[in-house]
Amino acid sequence: MTEQITTACVLVIGNEILTGRTQDTNLNHIARQLNEWGIRVREARVIPDVEEIIVAAVREASRRFDYVFTTGGIGPTHDDITADCIASAFNVELAEHPEIAARIRQREAPLDVMAARLRMARVPHGARLIDNSTGGPQGFAIGNVYVMAGIPSVMQAMLSTLEGQLDGGAPVRSRSVTAFLGESQIARPLGEIQARYPNIDLGSYPFVRDGRYGTSLVMRGTDTGDLDAMLEDVKSIIIEAGESPREIESG
Amino acid sequence: MTEQITTACVLVIGNEILTGRTQDTNLNHIARQLNEWGIRVREARVIPDVEEIIVAAVREASRRFDYVFTTGGIGPTHDDITADCIASAFNVELAEHPEIAARIRQREAPLDVMAARLRMARVPHGARLIDNSTGGPQGFAIGNVYVMAGIPSVMQAMLSTLEGQLDGGAPVRSRSVTAFLGESQIARPLGEIQARYPNIDLGSYPFVRDGRYGTSLVMRGTDTGDLDAMLEDVKSIIIEAGESPREIESG
Repeated sequence: MTEQITTACVLVIGNEILTGRTQDTNLNHIARQLNEWGIRVREARVIPDVEEIIVAAVREASRRFDYVFTTGGIGPTHDDITADCIASAFNVELAEHPEIAARIRQREAPLDVMAARLRMARVPHGARLIDNSTGGPQGFAIGNVYVMAGIPSVMQAMLSTLEGQLDGGAPVRSRSVTAFLGESQIARPLGEIQARYPNIDLGSYPFVRDGRYGTSLVMRGTDTGDLDAMLEDVKSIIIEAGESPREIESG
Repeated sequence: MTEQITTACVLVIGNEILTGRTQDTNLNHIARQLNEWGIRVREARVIPDVEEIIVAAVREASRRFDYVFTTGGIGPTHDDITADCIASAFNVELAEHPEIAARIRQREAPLDVMAARLRMARVPHGARLIDNSTGGPQGFAIGNVYVMAGIPSVMQAMLSTLEGQLDGGAPVRSRSVTAFLGESQIARPLGEIQARYPNIDLGSYPFVRDGRYGTSLVMRGTDTGDLDAMLEDVKSIIIEAGESPREIESG
């Protein structure tokens, strides 16, 4: 590949995902949104609420990828340790941010409740705020690490405010076609097509629908000319195999 | 903690998860199933279909965790490289396994289709088979790494055959209670309760339902006596905060 690719890593922080109590949906949303902004998620990690694990994962991801997005662990309870860990990862102090604290104080509460809520105002020294249009406490960013809430609706609100603030490359486009064919029936010509278009990623994903085996073929890349040409080649081999290609989406 | 904990890592292999095309559900299923078997998922990683990344992730996970479970990348097409990568990670050759090949040959096919299908019979030297009750090609295990399909129904069939074959500890039990309280309202006493029961993991998970904020409190551990005692303490602080605790599950 000659093009410059902007990469990202997603860190999903939370025991509840690893125990199976909660089905994560944040990775999927972040991946789709970043794709539109020309940023590709190259890895995701789900890690527990354990300080040394979070600190190590943040440091490694920050070094290896252009952007890091974390979800979870920024609430007011004892198990919310993400902000502390991000500060440790960057070797800076954690301090109450006046803008977040002001927002939290708008809603009155007894002293000890307010004290718990104000935990959410603590951000690493030098952090920028990520706005939160739900009205709750803001998220924050430091270096190339963007720290967001775990509740999907709040995370989505925070992520949406980053539009236009991140340096992405050309957006990744896709072409998809499905056919009621086993993958094996077209495996050889598919491999040949992939070899002819090194800039386009051709994925083959089997499915079972109404008791029949089928395959989704997904082409992803930034060059729409190559994408369209590859799509025609893929449709041809489906027809040669005796089936009808169904184009299902175009992104 | 004085108890011996059996740990696992899940490696979700596949570009389709990282692009957001597919919502992963395999991690959630594996985590729940392993919990029942007394094995705790301590980390999960979603990685692309790239050889050096898969090889490095498998080696690291195999070293750090008691068990590793992979999903995806064992089909018949050019982008299915998991078996090759596992062989590389263990420095062994990949060879056609007669039992898998026999199963594949039961369904007749033209020569080149059969050649593609037989890719799925290749396993690292010394691998044990993981049966596949859907009738498709088997998965395999080598060392502490268990290699399964990416299609959820097939992965679930493979995983279920491992029942009784893995060395787990005491199964992790849980107690859960919800209340229409903001997390902050009980953050301080919750932290105190957590400190009193170091063997039990107390998680606090906020939610929004019917426009109201609520919190789920989940206790997880192997000692049911401690779990029940902690549950009573948590219910007490909810009542003290003026709300009604709702017990929602018991595992």
